[in-house]
Amino acid sequence: MKEYLKAMRKKMPLVHFLTNYVTVNDVANMMLASGGSPIMSDDIHEVEDITSICDATVINIGTLNERTIGSMIVAGRKANALGHPVIFDPVGAGASSYRTETTFRLLQEVQFSVIRGNISEIKTVNFGNGSTKGVDADIADAVTEENLSETIAFAKKLSKKSKAVIVITGAIDVIANEEQAYVVRNGVADMAKITGTGCMLDGVIAGCVAATPTKALEATVTAVAAFGLCGELAAERTSKMGGGTSMLRSGLIDAMCHLDEDVFMAGKKAEFM
Amino acid sequence: MKEYLKAMRKKMPLVHFLTNYVTVNDVANMMLASGGSPIMSDDIHEVEDITSICDATVINIGTLNERTIGSMIVAGRKANALGHPVIFDPVGAGASSYRTETTFRLLQEVQFSVIRGNISEIKTVNFGNGSTKGVDADIADAVTEENLSETIAFAKKLSKKSKAVIVITGAIDVIANEEQAYVVRNGVADMAKITGTGCMLDGVIAGCVAATPTKALEATVTAVAAFGLCGELAAERTSKMGGGTSMLRSGLIDAMCHLDEDVFMAGKKAEFM
Amino acid sequence: MKEYLKAMRKKMPLVHFLTNYVTVNDVANMMLASGGSPIMSDDIHEVEDITSICDATVINIGTLNERTIGSMIVAGRKANALGHPVIFDPVGAGASSYRTETTFRLLQEVQFSVIRGNISEIKTVNFGNGSTKGVDADIADAVTEENLSETIAFAKKLSKKSKAVIVITGAIDVIANEEQAYVVRNGVADMAKITGTGCMLDGVIAGCVAATPTKALEATVTAVAAFGLCGELAAERTSKMGGGTSMLRSGLIDAMCHLDEDVFMAGKKAEFM
Repeated sequence: MKEYLKAMRKKMPLVHFLTNYVTVNDVANMMLASGGSPIMSDDIHEVEDITSICDATVINIGTLNERTIGSMIVAGRKANALGHPVIFDPVGAGASSYRTETTFRLLQEVQFSVIRGNISEIKTVNFGNGSTKGVDADIADAVTEENLSETIAFAKKLSKKSKAVIVITGAIDVIANEEQAYVVRNGVADMAKITGTGCMLDGVIAGCVAATPTKALEATVTAVAAFGLCGELAAERTSKMGGGTSMLRSGLIDAMCHLDEDVFMAGKKAEFM
Repeated sequence: MKEYLKAMRKKMPLVHFLTNYVTVNDVANMMLASGGSPIMSDDIHEVEDITSICDATVINIGTLNERTIGSMIVAGRKANALGHPVIFDPVGAGASSYRTETTFRLLQEVQFSVIRGNISEIKTVNFGNGSTKGVDADIADAVTEENLSETIAFAKKLSKKSKAVIVITGAIDVIANEEQAYVVRNGVADMAKITGTGCMLDGVIAGCVAATPTKALEATVTAVAAFGLCGELAAERTSKMGGGTSMLRSGLIDAMCHLDEDVFMAGKKAEFM
Repeated sequence: MKEYLKAMRKKMPLVHFLTNYVTVNDVANMMLASGGSPIMSDDIHEVEDITSICDATVINIGTLNERTIGSMIVAGRKANALGHPVIFDPVGAGASSYRTETTFRLLQEVQFSVIRGNISEIKTVNFGNGSTKGVDADIADAVTEENLSETIAFAKKLSKKSKAVIVITGAIDVIANEEQAYVVRNGVADMAKITGTGCMLDGVIAGCVAATPTKALEATVTAVAAFGLCGELAAERTSKMGGGTSMLRSGLIDAMCHLDEDVFMAGKKAEFM
């Protein structure tokens, strides 16, 4: 899988982000650390121009508002017209009617290459219909070894419906297209105590997929495993210094700067199911 | 006082933030470090939904604008209707007419549980009337041992008027309700050289009060002392590594991750006046 | 040159920022580290009030939008009326028609004291005319020893036209007014892998120029050299700890906290051309 990392570092993809203001700085620094280059832009007067000079587009609704939703649709449609990959992160879908409705509006207007979220968000993408409940009680909340095959089947089905690679992140990550699925077991629990790990991962996925667009599934799996492994490497290093989530956050970016392709091959825990 | 910290860590309160874009990432990471969970959301179409699923709401006018002020009022009134604690941080009240007017508009529309600011901001809350002067020359700018009893009397009076716990932060912190007051002497001077210490503290207060709403004064004092103590612990640790405000900022979050209840009891400098 | 650093630390200038939401936190912390004090404010209802209580104004179009462009013009004109220095950072000028047009609109409405950008942005300031190309092929993209004298001549000419000190940052930095130019060779290559180094530098320039407004060229050169030197000091220190761009970013702020005037004099690589 190291060819996907190598391809990203060689291509140095320019990624257009329409993202939230909470985690945007970490997203930009992680993009740079992984070998790409970020541009943040969300005004409707320029998003088409910016998307046009970029290699991929990330749409993240973490702090959505009326102004930027319009820009997201315009940017997403432009990226579609140009054949650029578009990554969608439906942050908090299900937490408010507005997020759920916006999620469905975006799904209708834009063809995404990859949709990434936690299990609740991805369930909302599949089952929600404008309500704030959005979670089907038939699927348990966390992905566990027990419900793993069920979750994989769910992800494949949603991939078929959405024509996007589906990424469900958590303690165990599931990545699937219509036909194939991978499970990734990299990462450490404390990553959930840092805001923005998902948003940062969105960018790494965008960079990998932009570098190898014909292998979207494999490129996505590489990004997920590399990001999780950086979390492990950072946790190992920072725990010797006393540890803490701020150190871990910083260490995650530093680990991505240094990630060696052989270390990646030895440390990745990605399993083809 | 450790019961308030313990309660927050047990309840893991979900806190809705309508806050500024300068310090929002640190606010989110500090909230997670202290045992709670943050949601940032400021669009008027969803703030009622988001407030409804949360345990407390923080309103911070650090980068106020016309769009988000409307959202603050709607979210605050919803939190009031639900009986959730609402924390108000009138950042820069007195620095512009618009901030002062917005402060008074919010005070009129929303019943706050806690109002936190520096002495100039809190004076504006009390004495300002839409002017940009907003500071009564009869009360000295900094809280010192000399004017401490006067400041406490002022804080109690403002608490009576506003029906909120008043928190005046600075070298010496004063926390008061209508009848009782505490003085906290934790913290280090360099914390003033980090942007967002006040904003981060807002979140910790919100979490503590949400976990023990019937003891708002004591929960607030606990948050203020714990936060200041984390500053001391971080300063001690990072000064060995060369020091600097960026290290200190990061160390503050890491110290909150690790804050032991016995260390807290031994290190808190909170005095009932 | 240490008098400019000393003057800033003595005056502790208050700087009003209308800047992007990507790097704003680092900008605020760097401003504090260098001895100044930041206020971020971008609502049209208050920017005149805020500019009035400040010593300098920074306008940075990194995440421009229709709402804040109006505020930038109003703040810039107010600063002009008050005789306060105004620093302009045309982030991404040339990357979209909207950025280029906004750049020219701002140049027409506001008299800037200093304009800082990378070579592509500064070329757009000079040659662009609303097109998204905006780069004159006659001037090579990067500033090198080979095209240095040509670049200096270009910067002087643009300074004459814009009546602003021109700062072109890159591996080699060029700072010029109409008659004189300096070249600064401080800094490390990895600074380009951190988002916001330019934005942080904008603030340090604003602080230095606000402290010594009659010596805008020299104050700007001091800021550029000091910032680059902090990058070198941070790189040296953090490389011993394993290195990485997140460490470097944090170390840059810490180095500015500690920057000794004698260390600055010994380490600055500023050459009068």
